[in-house]
Amino acid sequence: MPLMGSPPGDHTVIDGTRYLYFAGTGYLGLQGHPDVIRAACEAAQRYGISSANSRTAFGNTAAVLEVERRAGALFGGGDAFYFASGYMGPSILLQTLQREFDAVLLDEWSHYCSADAARQTGLPVVAFRHADPDDLHARLTATLEPGQRPLVLTDGVFAARGEIAPLAELWHVLDQYPGAILCVDDAHGLGVLGADGRGTIEHAGLTESLVRGEPADANAPRLFLCGTLSKAVGGYGGILPSSRDFIARVKATAGHYGGATPPPTPVAAATAKALELLQSQPALRTRLRENAMRLKQGLREMGFSTDDTPVPICCLTVGDAANMRRIQQMLMEQGIAIAYMAAYSGLGPEGALRVAVFATHTDEMIRQLLDSLRLLV
Amino acid sequence: MPLMGSPPGDHTVIDGTRYLYFAGTGYLGLQGHPDVIRAACEAAQRYGISSANSRTAFGNTAAVLEVERRAGALFGGGDAFYFASGYMGPSILLQTLQREFDAVLLDEWSHYCSADAARQTGLPVVAFRHADPDDLHARLTATLEPGQRPLVLTDGVFAARGEIAPLAELWHVLDQYPGAILCVDDAHGLGVLGADGRGTIEHAGLTESLVRGEPADANAPRLFLCGTLSKAVGGYGGILPSSRDFIARVKATAGHYGGATPPPTPVAAATAKALELLQSQPALRTRLRENAMRLKQGLREMGFSTDDTPVPICCLTVGDAANMRRIQQMLMEQGIAIAYMAAYSGLGPEGALRVAVFATHTDEMIRQLLDSLRLLV
Repeated sequence: MPLMGSPPGDHTVIDGTRYLYFAGTGYLGLQGHPDVIRAACEAAQRYGISSANSRTAFGNTAAVLEVERRAGALFGGGDAFYFASGYMGPSILLQTLQREFDAVLLDEWSHYCSADAARQTGLPVVAFRHADPDDLHARLTATLEPGQRPLVLTDGVFAARGEIAPLAELWHVLDQYPGAILCVDDAHGLGVLGADGRGTIEHAGLTESLVRGEPADANAPRLFLCGTLSKAVGGYGGILPSSRDFIARVKATAGHYGGATPPPTPVAAATAKALELLQSQPALRTRLRENAMRLKQGLREMGFSTDDTPVPICCLTVGDAANMRRIQQMLMEQGIAIAYMAAYSGLGPEGALRVAVFATHTDEMIRQLLDSLRLLV
Repeated sequence: MPLMGSPPGDHTVIDGTRYLYFAGTGYLGLQGHPDVIRAACEAAQRYGISSANSRTAFGNTAAVLEVERRAGALFGGGDAFYFASGYMGPSILLQTLQREFDAVLLDEWSHYCSADAARQTGLPVVAFRHADPDDLHARLTATLEPGQRPLVLTDGVFAARGEIAPLAELWHVLDQYPGAILCVDDAHGLGVLGADGRGTIEHAGLTESLVRGEPADANAPRLFLCGTLSKAVGGYGGILPSSRDFIARVKATAGHYGGATPPPTPVAAATAKALELLQSQPALRTRLRENAMRLKQGLREMGFSTDDTPVPICCLTVGDAANMRRIQQMLMEQGIAIAYMAAYSGLGPEGALRVAVFATHTDEMIRQLLDSLRLLV
């Protein structure tokens, strides 16, 4: 079981050795940013580890409110609910919406936390073929009685394979169902996609529908989003940005507001600072996109059929599991860390190699990875 | 919305003013302990905010493993799984056990997170009367077909009212059902009850059944526990201690291990240090118990019918909601903070005043609260 000995970054210490690192989800390299670390320390010294109280009593801290204010502002002036872990996001969302849908349609490759949340509703849960609006349409037709309202739940960017969900197309399918809801868990898209880093919904041109919280006209679907601040953002915890009215409903409905200690204060302070950096340094996102393109271009030249989206994740299948373990191991011996994932939502039984590129990788670092990989596949 | 301006402790800064503080869940006063804060800062500087990776790849940190080792050791040498929030505990437990029970029997006043977890199973969920083994027995008889296996889910200590669940009696009822399971969410008991701070199961004399993971004989019920490290322990996050075999199953089954970033490194380091203090300073727990007795004795002399358990929570109902808000407000004006809870699992429609006492409160502080309260009720 390898142990991390430094913040995740372009170089990362694993089991005491410094590796050129292309794994995990620290896409913008902010987890180890000096300002972020300083914010965590200062908050620990001033406020201790947590408020140890519910937010309906004396649990609020300035840092938690600051994360919510910044996340609301990122999406154009709404509000947000900040909670302990991104894993809880779909569950909080579906609990709040519970009486407003009759069945859950789930992309078959959705993350574990979405499958958990769907089951929790007690309503019919129907999987549709991965990223397939036509199959969604067919399942809706087969599943719903007239007048029933579907809730579609999908990842924005899929964690293992890095694909972008066809949100605009899914949204369009839902157009035909009055009262329909589209929920997106954008753990890997938030802070990465879109000119302003709003993620997959910005990439799909749907930001405005999100902030409004209610459809522009009575027949358009409603759109809801949850995500994490632990990946590209560089902090930690889950976030649910929406309209002010909807966030008030979330807080009144989900036990996570009144029945839990809010995120630990040092982490909330670090996360607020990371959100500030995310918004004030758009060049990080530009550089991340360029690096994603550079990596994917190099992999294509090597014969891999990678997509050309700005997502900084490449998923490679090279022979069987044993062969991929060998490649991963040999790269480690050359001082380069990528992940072999034996199992994950969306992967076949042989698993896959997963390469993640960061904003802080230089051209030379990417070339070094490509050169080493070329000799092994 | 009041804002915390200091760690929670016997005195706590709220909205810029320092109050004598009897609220929340920082029962041992460790959230602001200098060693705990130092551990958080040092880890932030060395490791950044989080590993930003799954534990099945490069997500492990020494701090997270140390929390698990210490929590396992606290329960006598088993293992533990440490995750982002105590709220997730019952859900992780029930997911892992999913194929091993046919119905969930839930104490009607269980915390929101247990109700969420029960619903997620998709199996029948039957509420039994609060802390009532006879009613549990009646519901089991009415609900189960021959051969069906019940899972009983209850808080160990109830958050708002501070009552201790009658675990030994519930356990005894389950004796008659082969394959039965008792699951306890001990958020408020862990670190408080029992000579070693193992919580409600130690208080009930059931520790050994927990560590074994499997029943002593085939007909005895199995016992599982989850809890939080955010309250008495003084850190943050959820914990599930059990046998080594069962923890291996949890990690293989629940998406929370392979599909989530582990708890943030500074928080994990702080939590490991807090667990060390909890175990090395049993005097804290003794003092907490004495303070609970002192507070309850004083309230009884005032005419309140409080129990005489060592739980550091007193729940007072004094007239209607408006009257209790008045009392809470007038205490604040005198520099003393207690909580008025308008709504919580286990409370009536009028809500209640909740007084929490800490290990760090002096006799004089408790006397001051009692003297002020006496003039207001």
